[in-house]
Amino acid sequence: MAQASSPPRRGAGGERPRKQAPPNRRERAKARTRLALIRAAQRFIVEGQLHAPILEITQSADVGLGSFYNHFESRDALFAAAIDEALETLGGLLDQLGAGFEDPAELFAQSFRLTGRLFRSEPLLMQVALGAGPALLRATSGLVPRARREIEAGIRTRRFAVRDPEVALAIVVGSVLCLGELLSQEAERDAGATTDAAAAAILRMLGLGADEADRISKQPLPHLSLDVRGGRTTSGRKDTSQKRPTRRQPDAAAGITKEE
Amino acid sequence: MAQASSPPRRGAGGERPRKQAPPNRRERAKARTRLALIRAAQRFIVEGQLHAPILEITQSADVGLGSFYNHFESRDALFAAAIDEALETLGGLLDQLGAGFEDPAELFAQSFRLTGRLFRSEPLLMQVALGAGPALLRATSGLVPRARREIEAGIRTRRFAVRDPEVALAIVVGSVLCLGELLSQEAERDAGATTDAAAAAILRMLGLGADEADRISKQPLPHLSLDVRGGRTTSGRKDTSQKRPTRRQPDAAAGITKEE
Repeated sequence: MAQASSPPRRGAGGERPRKQAPPNRRERAKARTRLALIRAAQRFIVEGQLHAPILEITQSADVGLGSFYNHFESRDALFAAAIDEALETLGGLLDQLGAGFEDPAELFAQSFRLTGRLFRSEPLLMQVALGAGPALLRATSGLVPRARREIEAGIRTRRFAVRDPEVALAIVVGSVLCLGELLSQEAERDAGATTDAAAAAILRMLGLGADEADRISKQPLPHLSLDVRGGRTTSGRKDTSQKRPTRRQPDAAAGITKEE
Repeated sequence: MAQASSPPRRGAGGERPRKQAPPNRRERAKARTRLALIRAAQRFIVEGQLHAPILEITQSADVGLGSFYNHFESRDALFAAAIDEALETLGGLLDQLGAGFEDPAELFAQSFRLTGRLFRSEPLLMQVALGAGPALLRATSGLVPRARREIEAGIRTRRFAVRDPEVALAIVVGSVLCLGELLSQEAERDAGATTDAAAAAILRMLGLGADEADRISKQPLPHLSLDVRGGRTTSGRKDTSQKRPTRRQPDAAAGITKEE
C-alpha cells in the first residue's frame, strides 16, 4: 500500500478536520468528486480489493475515468488519501465521543478502547491504516497527534506521571500496532476484552494505580461505527449496563459516512 | 529486506540457540561456509550495503560464488538468515548477562535496556531486524520468545500483575519497535535515558510500583556489544558507579563474533 513506507501525508498541523466550505460552485463540484473517489476507495479497501483497476473505482464512485487524474496521481495516492481521510474522520469521532470527559485518563482510555475494537469491526481498513508501521509515530494527522495531545494534557494536569510524552506516545502507538497484529493473528480472541486489558496496562504505564486503571478500562463505551460500506449514519447509543457517574453524555457519534 | 513482510523463519520452538556439532568433516566445512556468508552479510547490513551484489558478499566471506547457492536461494534469504542469527546471538548474550538475576523484573529490565541502546550502537542492524514490524510478534526465535518467557516467569511468580502474557508481550514488542523509530527520528536523543524511561514505564505496565520501576531502570548495566564488523570479543565490564546489591556478577558477555 501507498502508506507502507511513509506516514499519512496530510498537511502540517492537522489537529482538527478541515471544515472550510469551498468558495464557489466549481470548487464545490471538484470537492464532491474527490470525496466520491475517496469514499469509493474506502469501500474497496474494506472489501480487500486493494488491486482493483482505477476504472472500477471511478465507476463505483460514479466519476469519469478522465477526472480521476485531476485529483490523484495513482491508485496508491488515492488509497493513501482514503486512509488519511478515514483516520482523520475516526479522530474527529473520538474527539466528539470524548467531549464529555474532564479526566484525561478517561478520555484517553475511551479512545484507545474504541480504536482497538475497530480491528475486529473494520479489520482491513485498520490493517491498511497501520501499514506504515512504526513510522506512524511521525503522522501529523489522524490518531497519533490526538494521542500526543491527550498524553500532554494528562501530564500538564499531573494526572499522568510520565515525564517524556514522546516516550509514552511511542509505547502507545507501538501497543496499538501490535494489538492489531495480535487480534489479526488470533481470530477467536475477544477484541473487547483484549483491548480493555491493554488499556488498563497502558494506564498503569502512564502512572495510574492498578485498581483505578482497571476501573476506567471497564466503563461503558459509546457506540462507534466507521461504516464506510453504506450510507448509514450510526447513533451514539450507549451500553448502559454499567453506571457511569463521572461524565456527561456525549451528544453525538457518527459513522464515517455522516458528512456525505 | 527479506524480513519486511514475514517474521524470522527459524525452526519451531527455537527457545535456545542450536549447539549441535555437525557430525563429520564435510558437514563441518559446510557449516563454516554458511557461517562465513552470514557474518559477511551482517557486515554488509551494518554498513548499509543492502543492495550489494552476491559476488561481493561471497568475496568478503572468502567463499566461492558457486557455493553460495548451496546455502541460500537469494541475497534476501541470506540477509534474513543473517538477521535471524544476529537476533538469536543477541538473545543468547542477553540470557548470559541475565543469568545472575533471580528477579524476573530485573532480568526483563536489563534485557530491554540493553536492547534499546543497540538502536544507537547498531542502528542499521536493528533497523533491518525490526523491518518485519508488528509481524515480529509471531517470531519463534530471537528476542520475542525470550521476552514471552520472561513475562510468563514474572506472572508465574506473581512479580508481574498482568493476566494475559500475550497482551503484555504485544505492548513490549510494540514499544521496542516505536522506541527504535523514535531514536532513529531524533538523532540527538539520548538512547540510554530514553530507553531507561521506557523501561520504567513498561515495568509499571507490568504491575510494579512507580518507585521500584524507576529504581530497577537505573541500575548499572553490563557491557554488551553486538560487534559484527571485526572479530573482537567484548568483555562483560560493568559500570560500577552505582551499587548493585541484589545480584551475582554475570560471568560472561560476548560479542556476536565470539563463536567464530
